[in-house]
Amino acid sequence: MSKKAKFYHAGCPVCLSAEHGIVDLIDPNKYEVEIVHLGEAKDRVAEAKGKGVQSVPALVLENGNVYHINFGAALKDLG
Amino acid sequence: MSKKAKFYHAGCPVCLSAEHGIVDLIDPNKYEVEIVHLGEAKDRVAEAKGKGVQSVPALVLENGNVYHINFGAALKDLG
Repeated sequence: MSKKAKFYHAGCPVCLSAEHGIVDLIDPNKYEVEIVHLGEAKDRVAEAKGKGVQSVPALVLENGNVYHINFGAALKDLG
Repeated sequence: MSKKAKFYHAGCPVCLSAEHGIVDLIDPNKYEVEIVHLGEAKDRVAEAKGKGVQSVPALVLENGNVYHINFGAALKDLG
C-alpha cells in the first residue's frame, strides 16, 4: 500500500516549479501525494505549521520528515 | 530509458536524512540517481557549483532544475 505524502505550496513560481519537478519524480507505487495550495486553503496553514513546515514549497512524508525545497514563501507570511 | 539525477551532499546529518528520504521516494523507472558526496569528492564541488548548487543537500535533474532540500552546508564552505 502506498504511503502518503503532502506537498504544500502557495502558488508562487518557485512553488510551481518544484511541484512539477518533485511530484513528477516521486514513485507512485510508494507514495500517494496530496497537493495542498495554502493560498487557497488558508485553513490548512495551521496544519502545515503543526507538521513543522516553515516555508513553501515543502514536502512532508508520512513518517513526519519535512523537506523544504528551495524557498518560495515563509509560512508566517501566509496567515 | 530513465533520466539521470544527481544528489549532492556532504555527509552532514541533514544531508543523510534527506538522502534517505528523498532518494527512497524517487521513481526508479523514471530516474537513475547518482549520489555524490562532496566531502569525499572535492574535485566535484566545481561541477556542482556549475550546475547552480548553492548548498547541500541538493538534487539536480537532467533538465537542469536544482532543488535545494533543507539546509546542511553552503557549497562555498566545501572548498
